[in-house]
Amino acid sequence: MAPKELSKLLGYRKDIRVVDATLRDGGLVNDFRFTDEFVRALYETNIKAGVDYMEVGYKGSKEMFDVNSFGKWKFCDDDDIYEVIGENNTSLKLAVMADVGRCDYKTDIHDRSSSPIDLIRVATYVHSIPTAIDMIEDAKAKGYEVSCNLMAISNAQESDVRVALDMVGQSPVDILYIVDSFGALYPEQIARIADLYMETAVKYNKKVGIHAHDNQRLAFANTIEAVGDGVDYLDATYLSMGRGAGNCSMENLLGFLRNPKYNVYPAINFIEKQMIPLKESGTVWGYDLQYMMTGLLNQHPRTAIAFTKEKRSDYSEFYKEIIAHE
Amino acid sequence: MAPKELSKLLGYRKDIRVVDATLRDGGLVNDFRFTDEFVRALYETNIKAGVDYMEVGYKGSKEMFDVNSFGKWKFCDDDDIYEVIGENNTSLKLAVMADVGRCDYKTDIHDRSSSPIDLIRVATYVHSIPTAIDMIEDAKAKGYEVSCNLMAISNAQESDVRVALDMVGQSPVDILYIVDSFGALYPEQIARIADLYMETAVKYNKKVGIHAHDNQRLAFANTIEAVGDGVDYLDATYLSMGRGAGNCSMENLLGFLRNPKYNVYPAINFIEKQMIPLKESGTVWGYDLQYMMTGLLNQHPRTAIAFTKEKRSDYSEFYKEIIAHE
Repeated sequence: MAPKELSKLLGYRKDIRVVDATLRDGGLVNDFRFTDEFVRALYETNIKAGVDYMEVGYKGSKEMFDVNSFGKWKFCDDDDIYEVIGENNTSLKLAVMADVGRCDYKTDIHDRSSSPIDLIRVATYVHSIPTAIDMIEDAKAKGYEVSCNLMAISNAQESDVRVALDMVGQSPVDILYIVDSFGALYPEQIARIADLYMETAVKYNKKVGIHAHDNQRLAFANTIEAVGDGVDYLDATYLSMGRGAGNCSMENLLGFLRNPKYNVYPAINFIEKQMIPLKESGTVWGYDLQYMMTGLLNQHPRTAIAFTKEKRSDYSEFYKEIIAHE
Repeated sequence: MAPKELSKLLGYRKDIRVVDATLRDGGLVNDFRFTDEFVRALYETNIKAGVDYMEVGYKGSKEMFDVNSFGKWKFCDDDDIYEVIGENNTSLKLAVMADVGRCDYKTDIHDRSSSPIDLIRVATYVHSIPTAIDMIEDAKAKGYEVSCNLMAISNAQESDVRVALDMVGQSPVDILYIVDSFGALYPEQIARIADLYMETAVKYNKKVGIHAHDNQRLAFANTIEAVGDGVDYLDATYLSMGRGAGNCSMENLLGFLRNPKYNVYPAINFIEKQMIPLKESGTVWGYDLQYMMTGLLNQHPRTAIAFTKEKRSDYSEFYKEIIAHE
């Protein structure tokens, strides 16, 4: 790892892109039931704040998921986006996430020329790269920007990640994403992983992105560590809204970035007017001890999410449960 | 800055010392009104968790502060420590903070041989170094370990900090502390500041410590950044209890450190049994947007603390107030 430049904090890198993932990762905690008013306010905020991409949700399979059990941002039909957001003749680009094995991409993702979407984010585990590459090729053929979000890398072998990166590197993908699904990684590990991704990115002329979780209260720290390591695409959510402990906070990230196009005030205003009322209405997310414990142990947060849902407060018992080896 | 060693996260540095500042920094949010039961439980927890030092409060001047307006940990009389904690025949050392200009150190700090205290932490601004040095010399002559905690360095000129460090370096102090009083610093800045401190530490054979605030949710991240930069003394508080946004969280820090003497379970148990009830009883501390804003602007958090006390929620107005230049 090269030492960082001393002057970097005063300047900025023009290639940085901020990706708002509030609807998509945040949708995981309210089954994507955002009001149209909320979505429009978020969209307007992103434009004012200088955010580069707004991820509006998932392209979920309607074969697998009941449309009556979720809000529309689980599926992100082009028509719904047009109806709520409109034609989007702005510099803010729209993104959706398409999960390997949970998206009917061949039928549900239409040509970009007839869609308001700009970026397709293909989410995959290391073991499902061939399907991910098929999805990447499909989306590129339809005219989209495409990222590949390699999930749960803290649980994968470094040698497997290396092979996966090289396979995806040879695809027409534009952006390779570091995803710390379990919120298990420390900044020093992020630096090492970013170096690994940058090798592939340089070799195949790709960009690198990061999506962090806040289990150990390091989502923001890991994101700005990655900025120093050459990572350009930065995921964040307002008030850290996201699954479990949530994500890198948009308000902290916008405050950190020095490019004058980014403004923190619209973020503060949106949080006051929309995010805090949403939280006070009973939607639960954000850092808590149970998430710290699963992050520390590099475990999927599903046990911690269940602990939260059951409104348990016996943290010591929970810790004993999740460190049990039997 | 040298690149960090790749293997460091798996090993550990024996010189690391964890300092629990819960009573002292946490006392700032409840006027030091902790029950004896709480203090004893904290003490027992620190021993079980492998914590090295427990800061029990301030040596506040009784000329300046009314003993009826504060709990006893604002003053830390030897007799009070003996009564609540006892003789302390353990490996856990006890510390107190002595503020320049707010401590009658010549009379109130007794010889170490007759005191349960091990470490005197002299807190000073850059402009009051001569008095700090007098306090350091006084405490050393009485037999204590002594640290010098240079406050608000994010607002001081680097050249002044350099001179201050050299002056303190020539004193008999044992530990030089980096204090990010405003929670304004990013990990990259911590790395640079740690390098500056380490130069003096190497020259004069001192140790370096860090005390971080969580205004930008970076207290833990900045603390572990400092570990990678050679800083040995690490301040933390349970559930981040401390002034304003609070401090580096003990539970995260203990989880991060690899020395087997540190145990996270007692911390989790103590938080469940004592810290969460304390918070639920109405004692307010911890990260919130108003602290992020003062941190971002490198301002003293007093306006944010007032915002909290007044139970305001008009974050946008507050931001406009604190960025006003007139």
